[in-house]
Amino acid sequence: MIVVVNANAPEKEIERLKESLLKKGLEINYSRGVDHIIMGLIGDTRSVEISNIESNDIVEKVLRVQEPYKKANRLFHPESSVFNILGSLIGGKNFAVMAGPCSVESEEQIISVAKSVKAAGATFLRGGAFKPRSSPYSFQGMGLDGLKLLKIAKAETGLPIVSEIMSTEMLDEFVKDVDVIQVGTRNMQNFVLLRELGKTNKPILLKRGMSATIEEWLMSAEYIMKEGNEQVILCERGIRTFETFTRNTLDISAVPAVQRKSHLPIIVDPSHSAGMYWMVEPLAKASIAAGADGVMIEVHNSPETALCDGSQSLKPEKFAELMIKLKKYAEIEGKVIG
Amino acid sequence: MIVVVNANAPEKEIERLKESLLKKGLEINYSRGVDHIIMGLIGDTRSVEISNIESNDIVEKVLRVQEPYKKANRLFHPESSVFNILGSLIGGKNFAVMAGPCSVESEEQIISVAKSVKAAGATFLRGGAFKPRSSPYSFQGMGLDGLKLLKIAKAETGLPIVSEIMSTEMLDEFVKDVDVIQVGTRNMQNFVLLRELGKTNKPILLKRGMSATIEEWLMSAEYIMKEGNEQVILCERGIRTFETFTRNTLDISAVPAVQRKSHLPIIVDPSHSAGMYWMVEPLAKASIAAGADGVMIEVHNSPETALCDGSQSLKPEKFAELMIKLKKYAEIEGKVIG
Amino acid sequence: MIVVVNANAPEKEIERLKESLLKKGLEINYSRGVDHIIMGLIGDTRSVEISNIESNDIVEKVLRVQEPYKKANRLFHPESSVFNILGSLIGGKNFAVMAGPCSVESEEQIISVAKSVKAAGATFLRGGAFKPRSSPYSFQGMGLDGLKLLKIAKAETGLPIVSEIMSTEMLDEFVKDVDVIQVGTRNMQNFVLLRELGKTNKPILLKRGMSATIEEWLMSAEYIMKEGNEQVILCERGIRTFETFTRNTLDISAVPAVQRKSHLPIIVDPSHSAGMYWMVEPLAKASIAAGADGVMIEVHNSPETALCDGSQSLKPEKFAELMIKLKKYAEIEGKVIG
Amino acid sequence: MIVVVNANAPEKEIERLKESLLKKGLEINYSRGVDHIIMGLIGDTRSVEISNIESNDIVEKVLRVQEPYKKANRLFHPESSVFNILGSLIGGKNFAVMAGPCSVESEEQIISVAKSVKAAGATFLRGGAFKPRSSPYSFQGMGLDGLKLLKIAKAETGLPIVSEIMSTEMLDEFVKDVDVIQVGTRNMQNFVLLRELGKTNKPILLKRGMSATIEEWLMSAEYIMKEGNEQVILCERGIRTFETFTRNTLDISAVPAVQRKSHLPIIVDPSHSAGMYWMVEPLAKASIAAGADGVMIEVHNSPETALCDGSQSLKPEKFAELMIKLKKYAEIEGKVIG
Repeated sequence: MIVVVNANAPEKEIERLKESLLKKGLEINYSRGVDHIIMGLIGDTRSVEISNIESNDIVEKVLRVQEPYKKANRLFHPESSVFNILGSLIGGKNFAVMAGPCSVESEEQIISVAKSVKAAGATFLRGGAFKPRSSPYSFQGMGLDGLKLLKIAKAETGLPIVSEIMSTEMLDEFVKDVDVIQVGTRNMQNFVLLRELGKTNKPILLKRGMSATIEEWLMSAEYIMKEGNEQVILCERGIRTFETFTRNTLDISAVPAVQRKSHLPIIVDPSHSAGMYWMVEPLAKASIAAGADGVMIEVHNSPETALCDGSQSLKPEKFAELMIKLKKYAEIEGKVIG
Repeated sequence: MIVVVNANAPEKEIERLKESLLKKGLEINYSRGVDHIIMGLIGDTRSVEISNIESNDIVEKVLRVQEPYKKANRLFHPESSVFNILGSLIGGKNFAVMAGPCSVESEEQIISVAKSVKAAGATFLRGGAFKPRSSPYSFQGMGLDGLKLLKIAKAETGLPIVSEIMSTEMLDEFVKDVDVIQVGTRNMQNFVLLRELGKTNKPILLKRGMSATIEEWLMSAEYIMKEGNEQVILCERGIRTFETFTRNTLDISAVPAVQRKSHLPIIVDPSHSAGMYWMVEPLAKASIAAGADGVMIEVHNSPETALCDGSQSLKPEKFAELMIKLKKYAEIEGKVIG
Repeated sequence: MIVVVNANAPEKEIERLKESLLKKGLEINYSRGVDHIIMGLIGDTRSVEISNIESNDIVEKVLRVQEPYKKANRLFHPESSVFNILGSLIGGKNFAVMAGPCSVESEEQIISVAKSVKAAGATFLRGGAFKPRSSPYSFQGMGLDGLKLLKIAKAETGLPIVSEIMSTEMLDEFVKDVDVIQVGTRNMQNFVLLRELGKTNKPILLKRGMSATIEEWLMSAEYIMKEGNEQVILCERGIRTFETFTRNTLDISAVPAVQRKSHLPIIVDPSHSAGMYWMVEPLAKASIAAGADGVMIEVHNSPETALCDGSQSLKPEKFAELMIKLKKYAEIEGKVIG
Repeated sequence: MIVVVNANAPEKEIERLKESLLKKGLEINYSRGVDHIIMGLIGDTRSVEISNIESNDIVEKVLRVQEPYKKANRLFHPESSVFNILGSLIGGKNFAVMAGPCSVESEEQIISVAKSVKAAGATFLRGGAFKPRSSPYSFQGMGLDGLKLLKIAKAETGLPIVSEIMSTEMLDEFVKDVDVIQVGTRNMQNFVLLRELGKTNKPILLKRGMSATIEEWLMSAEYIMKEGNEQVILCERGIRTFETFTRNTLDISAVPAVQRKSHLPIIVDPSHSAGMYWMVEPLAKASIAAGADGVMIEVHNSPETALCDGSQSLKPEKFAELMIKLKKYAEIEGKVIG
């Protein structure tokens, strides 16, 4: 950590600041320029409150050198993490394909979609039982009945289930019934939920908050990992920007960025990024080309009657066509879908 | 709701779309131009899934006319809401001042700060017991002990307490001990929490999500109000933009915007917007000048040792000076602090 | 265009509004709901001032149906435009690769880089002679001498030249010496410059403004095309968002979006998007996978001593490796580099 | 400037980096931690290319300590600048009010508006002759005829004229006829134009680019000042964010931020920020309360027929009411309008 101090500050104030830093157990490398004094702090600064130091009148800025995450940091874990979830692999050379409807609507629907995505080569079944909707007047999901139907579809196809949890109250049911527990974009900083998920032994799919920086996202992963659960899969799903043509702006650069900074796998959700079915194919291909460890794609047998997100859902036949192309891209990159 | 359809679409597809809309109980006002057909939908469209309609190949866009919120909408409730919380008023001609430390740290601290803000004219005591921190290695608040200390400070000063809830598990304690339950920016779309708060009879302070549109924010208020609790106070605290000089960008325009669209009171938190103590005064004055119904300001007796957000906290004497100016501004606007 | 009017407005005001709209030569499709009156305007609304209508107290909003661009619109020009620039093709099935240094620095440098990018398969030589730098204390480019050196490099390699113009004063030189005239992100709405470029017969590379919507970008293309020059190539180069890890956020979705709305070719500049050399490869591959018509890549023989943008420049050998991969991707997509 | 280097880098690479920094005439303060080496560079780093240093594989980041602007920097010019423009003062204790129509439309219009804003207390007359419009099909201003009409209005009222320049071609006319030359948001980084304006002796009103950081904005002021013209007035006019309720998001925090970092006066344009006439009053009051040195407000005698920006224009009587309130606010802050 580097503290930049006004060089014209009274000597007494500077001494007081130095003492307060030394008291935190840090060493100070002190260097005086014409306009600024630079204090390089050496030691473990992860728990130092930057805000505290900044509240000094004489401090101009505080710059962090060390990344604030540790368990998620590639620096301390150079190899890419690979997770094996009921035989479906993710990370390293393994490209995961999670597919299924935005929300589970009926037994027929979920089984039909599950079978078709399985046939096309998907490696996970996604399906929402609890739906975070911006309007209280919209369909809120089938709830626990939805989880039951997902289990039936899993029994039929063998695909592990990915489904979103909305609060700690449902934790026991999710640990029992779901194979990958998804944390939605609106809950990326629901720290109580993250902490409880960190105490389970289930893989967690952590979607990026729609206005979260990459660092904040990794800090949310750290919340889970700190409690002992190191199976965190990150999912880029578009960020909020000034552009309104797309529902969100897919931050494709987040893929190489996360892979440089962290060992955790990162997948992309092109469906939520775009919000338009015809954009899913180009964005899914861009994701694998950029090096993503997987994609998550909404597939619905009847988008026009879907209870949510119909506009961004692919029909099963379109999904099958997309899978053929993704396999070619995977081959170029030396990756295996599975 | 207005559906824009490609005028070159096959007649059969257009008919099918019309039928599906009529089935929803809506009337259609149909108008054909050279390039586009415009279908004006008449009836209650609040629960119509836009995404559903957009999934049709022939639909170019769907435009909403009606606002999706009802209970929060000034259209159906022209008078501004005024809430009386243990004698402290907010809304209409009443300007509320909520002041206190970012987090409760000790009995001495909270009582000392409470007394000084009361003396300066604050009408509510704010103080965090549960703190949502982006790092799991940062101080997370005193928890229930913090709530106890706030109650002692309330007993000493008579100031009603504002404190942030982080999950439904603590709901009973908050209902029992806290006078205004705050929902933080990261939980603005924690819909499970909002729904449960809607079943209580406590005033709720709903902070704007850092990347929430004004409409989404009012929809979150609607979640609470739909369950029966209509005492929602909105709090603008800065939004996330490209500018990094300030911690967040205070969206001062949100004040008149919300007041035009909704009858709910709106206050401003200049401390979190700026992230720098020296910017609190100009932003607080701007807030009252723009018509806000109150401000929420962080005050700490020793910012340099504060366990969180020291950089943006005012010392009690600075807060007292600010109050003198706010009173003059209130006078010009015909408002009363209290 | 759709005008939404408050249904409680006085009848006289509504009549006055209707008359003023009819006077503009528009037909009105009138439909009254409980809360709102919807007026659908039929006719050519491209030059109607929305702001004018919105200044009426009784108008709640005005929604545009028709896109405001005409010559750039795929609706009126369904086939993709293909340009042949001294034998190098762009658009349709042709993938263009523009490569070279951020700025021309010396004869040795530009010739050496030009030869190596040509050998690796680039189809255009890029190089800056006039550099828009945010600091007046930074290197501002070699100016006209830079253009001369580019011509020498072109003579040596046969590669057509792409270079950025900064003001109309240099127009004659650029028309004479440059094969594709680039408009930088900061000049995307320099309308005087656009208009003058529209009067030339040179292909224009129009970079997206760093905070321009896709619609505004197409409107800037329209400025050029309206004057008669229809050879406009669009270039996505990253937009400004809250994320600071990357210099800009590459909006990869802009590729399919532009291709749906317009017939003009669109290329991607992964170098400026990322600002970091190690991110250029994944972003370049993502661009071709998303369907882009080309890429523009900074290549420098000695990034550590480059006079600008060294951090994002590839060394020639890295560029050659990237080209091998791009060719494989092009093959999958049925495209030809050339 | 601080260079953060990977502590595991080969010694030879580190030495090479050190040498290259010493060659730039900088001193290095070297400090080695467990994971990082920190090199503090001492000396004038304003012209050092950060990008250059970052292109080294072993460099993790480069942090700037010194601000890159010098002439605009309050550090080297502690007193606030005050400009006297034909008797109208701006800066320090003087609050300037620039008012008038978006664009000059006719002699009657501009004289009528000029007289009414003068009567209400405005200190400058604003009016556009050359209009940067996002559509080539919109009204582009009256051009030189507009300037002539502004001069007539100035002769009638004595108000100095503020008008926007769009390119260097019109520079002579503007220097001759206009009292404050405005640079619009889209030209904030038109460096050729800035440089030429720096060679004149006219005060320049520099609007903030809609996605420019405060630092970039001050760097654009620096471009003008470097050439010798130190009379730069900054104008905040709203930035582009994800919020679409307002046309732009007024960044009210920019007022205290600029005043802390620079000695130049800063005014606010609430009309363009909001895009809606009913929001102009609260935002104008917020501006003066936040400490702005002035406001720029659009006033039109007939907004419904205005050739541009009617929706955000005040009628003269509304403007007069606003002025009464602004005077009361100025009094509290010890400021004088004039």
